[in-house]
Amino acid sequence: MTTAERSAVQSGTDPWLRTLCDWLAIPSVSADPGHHGDVDASARFLAEALRRTGFPTVEVLDAGPYLPAVYAHWPSGDPNAVRVVVYGHHDVQPADAADGWSYEPFEPHIVDGLIHARGASDDKGNVAMHLLGLAAHLAATGRTSPAVDLTLLVEGEEESGSPHISALLADLDGRLSADVVVISDTGIFDAATPSLVTGMRGLVSGEVRVQGPRIDLHSGSFGGAVANPITELVRILAAIHDEDRHITIPGFYDGVDEPSELERDLLGALPFDETAWVTGPARSRAAVGEAGYSTLERLGMRPTAEINGIHGGYTGPGGKTIVPTSAAAKLSFRLVGRQDPAAVMRAVDAFLVAQTRPGVEVTMTWEGSGVRPLVVPSDHPATTAARRALGAAFDTDRVLITREGGSGPEAELAETIGAPLVFLGVMTDDDQIHAPDERAPLDLLVKGAESVAHLWRELAAVGRNALA
Amino acid sequence: MTTAERSAVQSGTDPWLRTLCDWLAIPSVSADPGHHGDVDASARFLAEALRRTGFPTVEVLDAGPYLPAVYAHWPSGDPNAVRVVVYGHHDVQPADAADGWSYEPFEPHIVDGLIHARGASDDKGNVAMHLLGLAAHLAATGRTSPAVDLTLLVEGEEESGSPHISALLADLDGRLSADVVVISDTGIFDAATPSLVTGMRGLVSGEVRVQGPRIDLHSGSFGGAVANPITELVRILAAIHDEDRHITIPGFYDGVDEPSELERDLLGALPFDETAWVTGPARSRAAVGEAGYSTLERLGMRPTAEINGIHGGYTGPGGKTIVPTSAAAKLSFRLVGRQDPAAVMRAVDAFLVAQTRPGVEVTMTWEGSGVRPLVVPSDHPATTAARRALGAAFDTDRVLITREGGSGPEAELAETIGAPLVFLGVMTDDDQIHAPDERAPLDLLVKGAESVAHLWRELAAVGRNALA
Repeated sequence: MTTAERSAVQSGTDPWLRTLCDWLAIPSVSADPGHHGDVDASARFLAEALRRTGFPTVEVLDAGPYLPAVYAHWPSGDPNAVRVVVYGHHDVQPADAADGWSYEPFEPHIVDGLIHARGASDDKGNVAMHLLGLAAHLAATGRTSPAVDLTLLVEGEEESGSPHISALLADLDGRLSADVVVISDTGIFDAATPSLVTGMRGLVSGEVRVQGPRIDLHSGSFGGAVANPITELVRILAAIHDEDRHITIPGFYDGVDEPSELERDLLGALPFDETAWVTGPARSRAAVGEAGYSTLERLGMRPTAEINGIHGGYTGPGGKTIVPTSAAAKLSFRLVGRQDPAAVMRAVDAFLVAQTRPGVEVTMTWEGSGVRPLVVPSDHPATTAARRALGAAFDTDRVLITREGGSGPEAELAETIGAPLVFLGVMTDDDQIHAPDERAPLDLLVKGAESVAHLWRELAAVGRNALA
Repeated sequence: MTTAERSAVQSGTDPWLRTLCDWLAIPSVSADPGHHGDVDASARFLAEALRRTGFPTVEVLDAGPYLPAVYAHWPSGDPNAVRVVVYGHHDVQPADAADGWSYEPFEPHIVDGLIHARGASDDKGNVAMHLLGLAAHLAATGRTSPAVDLTLLVEGEEESGSPHISALLADLDGRLSADVVVISDTGIFDAATPSLVTGMRGLVSGEVRVQGPRIDLHSGSFGGAVANPITELVRILAAIHDEDRHITIPGFYDGVDEPSELERDLLGALPFDETAWVTGPARSRAAVGEAGYSTLERLGMRPTAEINGIHGGYTGPGGKTIVPTSAAAKLSFRLVGRQDPAAVMRAVDAFLVAQTRPGVEVTMTWEGSGVRPLVVPSDHPATTAARRALGAAFDTDRVLITREGGSGPEAELAETIGAPLVFLGVMTDDDQIHAPDERAPLDLLVKGAESVAHLWRELAAVGRNALA
């Protein structure tokens, strides 16, 4: 069905796409201090684009401990309008062409309808939907200001675990009042199955380091009689899981609820083809995980302990027969339900102390304070409005419900702002986010922008009282 | 006691030291293909030094699959002279100034009597002893050719596990006939305790690689439902040892003999100060190893499984929440007694197959065919002659017996040449071989050179018949 919103989105796509590509060319990698200047440039680029879209108030927030974030506000003009805060992020995951990218990660290429670039999907593409969507909303409704009171907050260190989100929210004290928070940093089930996320996993992450001898030792002259820090590290890491891939860390599962029958049913209703998932987006040999749970349950309702990286000793060409001085691993734990990040960190710390044997020193360094898990109600009027908006853009009345395995500062946002969350994002598992060859289908981003345009109209129709 | 040999060694030390330092400046790292030109330059440098010493026959062997080796021969002139083959190597371990060297590893510095450089001890310093020692032997005895029929073989890929030693020995077929093989690639108990090695551990080494997803996956979107190759690798590696640090690989201990009471007594007689060893050369926090054995037994008489390096996933600054595509570890196994390298490789391969779970592919790539362990008789006339030579250089009649934890192609040499081995080297645990800040005490290298000069006289006095 061609709506006024769709026509407006389509006529605005070309110049909007050029803006997006220019933005994607800025390597705003928050995890790498060498790219923090680019994070700043990315924030300023977005701020300028928001000004051009018409936002009367646009600020780059760079006075706090956080990397530059962007705040924008456009009042509806109606004091009773629904107040909306949109959240996204403009920093991106690290990307190195040498890791196997088909195109330079920060030189956007559009091939067969796919925008290839780091951040094309996560999250610049999904944030950019709001530029096109809002312009279409104005054009379609003939308004000179949005039908909702609109605030955007686009942070610059989500890919580093949003370590300063509390400080950022505190700095915006009073300027984030909202009836609905719209999160644009998640996805839909697949390109043909629009869906709304109703839960996200939390996250704590850090690095465990094992120190052994003060110098690399000859493995012939010393091997067998001193502790090898790699051997100790792998022993400790292997102890995290049992044979069934349950996590053995005492207290780790505190606050994890078993999925209810209803939740199992809802997830089971998704058209999930495990074989296609394994060979497709998962690019894997098999679906393997915790015994007793389905793949979707493992992803959405169960916590994990993952080793994201490991390094120690000699890893160059050929061999080097040493007992090395140290070894380290980057660990991350996804959390669900009522798991508390601080309690999980304490449980892991205690586990590491208990696992340490003589001859080595084991230290754990956490990144920030972690991200809380989140579950949102699926029958809230805002959720219903968002399902209608997605359905209008995707030409369907069947918008499903999913759980997101990834993490963001959304739980903190929801608590601080005190408003229900709506997840409006169009990433799919095919987007290869966090991996080489990240890309986003242009048509999905355009549908996402159309959903945004519908959503502002839908929320205005629901009205502020119904959302309270 | 000042002997003619000692006087001759002392008067030749200065120019010899300049030659050694020039040689040490050549970064002959056999493990790194980028340094193979330097291995060649190192061989040619040594060949020229041998010619200057007087060897009538000197050849750089570079036509085989091996990196350049040096062969030199100087007949005694007496057809009944004792025939000696000396073995050493001129390649060195990798060295990177960034790993914490006090001086550039390939810019020799002499500080407080210590020669600082990669290879100063292992093995250029110990090979160079033969240049100074032979000149002193000639000067002290007034001879124009050595009292023994002398052959030198200095190979160029010992630090890579001597993968082509068989081909090298085959190419020298008939030119390595000997009554005694003198190995100069080991050490003495400590600077104050001259000793002779009577055994060396064997070695097999290689890399195990675990392949998981074909691309790095987002650990939120996929974590918990696909196999993480680092998790699988650490589980497999942790399974190699039990809680007592015994090795669990079925068949691994085939051919390992328990140390006899005599062997335990001989090792126990060494003035070994474990506390001083832990805080001194081992630069460690504790002496830890296989339950039921002493530190010296663990080093000399027990096999090991060491992880020399490990790498997988993201190891840069900050974090990257991925399930990575692969992980790999460099493994080495020290062998003792009658352990067979090929059988150990097969046992490890079978263990890895048995440990592999669905979702990953595990491959083991071995470096070469391994090095056999070696035990030599301690009452052979050549051993006795060598103990007298060392005693004369160190002014003592108490030269002890040790076992070497390291490995070399000596077992293959002994078998191919069919002659008893004598280990004449003056490395100590303080030399930091295979580690940053490798160094060699100049006075020990000079005493080693004097030992060489005495040894040729002693062996000539023993005579060929007594050695047969």
